[in-house]
Amino acid sequence: MLERNEQGETESLMADIGRRARRAAAPLALAGTEAKNTALLAMAEAIERGSTAILAANADDMARAEQTGLAASFKDRLKLTDERIAAIAAGIRAIAALPDPVGDVLAAWERPNGLRIERVRTPLGVIGVIYESRPNVTADAGALCLKAGNPVVLRGGSDSLASSRAIHACLAEGLTTAGLPADAIQMVPVPDRDAVGAMLSGLDGNLDVIVPRGGKTLVARVQREARVPVFAHLEGLCHVYVDRSADPDMARRIVTNAKMRRTGICGAAETLLLDAQLPVETKSAILADLAAAGCTIRGDEHVRALYPEAESACEEDWSTEYLDAIISARQVDGIAEALAHIDRYSSHHTEAVIAEDPDVVGRFFNEVDSAILLHNASTQFADGAEFGMGAEIGIATGKMHARGPVGVEQLTSFNYRVRGSGQTRP
Amino acid sequence: MLERNEQGETESLMADIGRRARRAAAPLALAGTEAKNTALLAMAEAIERGSTAILAANADDMARAEQTGLAASFKDRLKLTDERIAAIAAGIRAIAALPDPVGDVLAAWERPNGLRIERVRTPLGVIGVIYESRPNVTADAGALCLKAGNPVVLRGGSDSLASSRAIHACLAEGLTTAGLPADAIQMVPVPDRDAVGAMLSGLDGNLDVIVPRGGKTLVARVQREARVPVFAHLEGLCHVYVDRSADPDMARRIVTNAKMRRTGICGAAETLLLDAQLPVETKSAILADLAAAGCTIRGDEHVRALYPEAESACEEDWSTEYLDAIISARQVDGIAEALAHIDRYSSHHTEAVIAEDPDVVGRFFNEVDSAILLHNASTQFADGAEFGMGAEIGIATGKMHARGPVGVEQLTSFNYRVRGSGQTRP
Repeated sequence: MLERNEQGETESLMADIGRRARRAAAPLALAGTEAKNTALLAMAEAIERGSTAILAANADDMARAEQTGLAASFKDRLKLTDERIAAIAAGIRAIAALPDPVGDVLAAWERPNGLRIERVRTPLGVIGVIYESRPNVTADAGALCLKAGNPVVLRGGSDSLASSRAIHACLAEGLTTAGLPADAIQMVPVPDRDAVGAMLSGLDGNLDVIVPRGGKTLVARVQREARVPVFAHLEGLCHVYVDRSADPDMARRIVTNAKMRRTGICGAAETLLLDAQLPVETKSAILADLAAAGCTIRGDEHVRALYPEAESACEEDWSTEYLDAIISARQVDGIAEALAHIDRYSSHHTEAVIAEDPDVVGRFFNEVDSAILLHNASTQFADGAEFGMGAEIGIATGKMHARGPVGVEQLTSFNYRVRGSGQTRP
Repeated sequence: MLERNEQGETESLMADIGRRARRAAAPLALAGTEAKNTALLAMAEAIERGSTAILAANADDMARAEQTGLAASFKDRLKLTDERIAAIAAGIRAIAALPDPVGDVLAAWERPNGLRIERVRTPLGVIGVIYESRPNVTADAGALCLKAGNPVVLRGGSDSLASSRAIHACLAEGLTTAGLPADAIQMVPVPDRDAVGAMLSGLDGNLDVIVPRGGKTLVARVQREARVPVFAHLEGLCHVYVDRSADPDMARRIVTNAKMRRTGICGAAETLLLDAQLPVETKSAILADLAAAGCTIRGDEHVRALYPEAESACEEDWSTEYLDAIISARQVDGIAEALAHIDRYSSHHTEAVIAEDPDVVGRFFNEVDSAILLHNASTQFADGAEFGMGAEIGIATGKMHARGPVGVEQLTSFNYRVRGSGQTRP
């Protein structure tokens, strides 16, 4: 437990981190593409070169995780290997290869009085990233924020502290190599709860947005308590609606992929809605495919009639994000009832419609209020890299500023630059 | 004073308003351009047709304002005339004439796997507008939010309640004419403080953004207490920097216009920065022009040497938004010191540089962190209509989502619509 004076120390430490981050904003906003990319490539190299030290630090974290008796899934996220370190370095190089968003002219027009107006991308501000066990978030988030010209304050979980610190040292080396301010990427060295609290309250106005990366408990706390904007999603309760007009084979392939390719990601399907008018053999085949792939089905009475091994779905199932090989399934009376179900239970993340009828697709696209809508494609494509946006820091379900995958462009703001030739306003 | 049970009534009234607004969101998002424009044109007509009733309601408000002894400037903002009512109707027609932002394809691209991705504009959500004495905000804000497909909750000042109610009745008539939900534009009928409090806390999650329209006290309270995002600016402490390379005549015209065209608007210049290397006669002429136009000058010792009638500027002057015929003025040692001054004192709203040297302009545009930057043009152009964006609901100095003039496009969000042909993720 922390003693009182240590709590005070955390407070002043966090305030100092905030001030340093804010001071780094202007030089970072002015840093050219070349300097930023030089830093990123040097970071990747430092990580490869430092892999022995990183693995040693990670071994310490793993040993503590063993002692603490942490869950296997937790330890899997924590564990680093040569392959994972190579992937981290490759991820940073991929960010270096992305176009620099800062300075992009988003729009340009001329007014009748001759004023020429441009809307130009600028960095967004100081980003706070609060994450849990995955040490690779240190590198991903640090690199993405740097590319967009934003200082970042990283607060990793205490269980991965040694690993994150070792990676952070490599990021700092990259900044130094490129002559960029060391405070551009800061890591909170004391990961106690007060550090999170200080970030949630905005570091005295020095934090502009918070991105939580981790489980629902973390995200829910950040969304509830943050006094600054949050880019996040609490859940990905993704629906797949199979319309009567669907191509049967396509429907079978997409549903199985949407649920079972990887069950633990936010874009995994959680609820299947089958049009009552879909041929019985198609419905049965979709359910049999899921079961054959190892999926437990929790269905309404229609689904259980089609597939008697299905468990009985209760009300709670429609609002449960399993993140596991389980799917809730029910029959709906066409697109209208599908829309009503989604409107009631969706987490506004990602939904898919499998249909050939353009009117059904049109209604689905116009009426479902989610960040990502897919037609005849798997919900598992809900991912920044799959969208061609490069790496993402997460997926947002809010409608303000960033929605959907949050990549380097979503970490920018803009301003207006007006060029005149002496115009005064009449 | 409110009694306890009335306070409870306000609470449940506001909760009900929030729920109704949220329920109106889906039908409004689906309303076509034609329905929205039909409603807007019917509103304009109803306002013209109802001008007698509106003027009578306004006379009641004015009589109360006389009794209460409100300030002349307050009464001027409150007062409606035939001309002002005609301007309100014309403003609504101008919004009807704007392109409908909803459904706009902001970007479209295809992935190597054949997925076709579009980013499409959608409504933003439920907007809350908290304003003071100007009854025309009722119409402006109601119409703008409707055009962008957003339900709006209007909370006007108690002093303009009768006028705002009369205008709101015309807006409601327009909604009915077009078959749109009456709850699309709701006005809080009991403008007590608890209603504001309920809006600031987000109407139980049913309010997505708040726009305050009024004086600094109101904006500061909203920015401090709101639990939802706010589009606003607290101050427009706008700077004009005149570089040594400036065209002297242009500099004189722009400075006088930037300060004196209208002194009470947020784009009015408040601080003049004169390059030490600017010719003495140019500096003197700029100051003499301002004085001749009726402006009080508060200067540093250099300015007072050039223009001895100038008052002495104290530290406070550099952070004061006068909104009056007063300007603070000092000499700076070129662009570097101008940037340092602006960085320290700016409200990040609007700043202008008068210069012919492209390097100076480049540094100004790249290094000043404000929503609107102007080169060789008056700061008084900081206005949505002058930008060609149509009406604006205000100007935002935040960097999240909306920055600069907040027009109909800034009141939208977007989602991703992905069209496939059976793609599953490998």
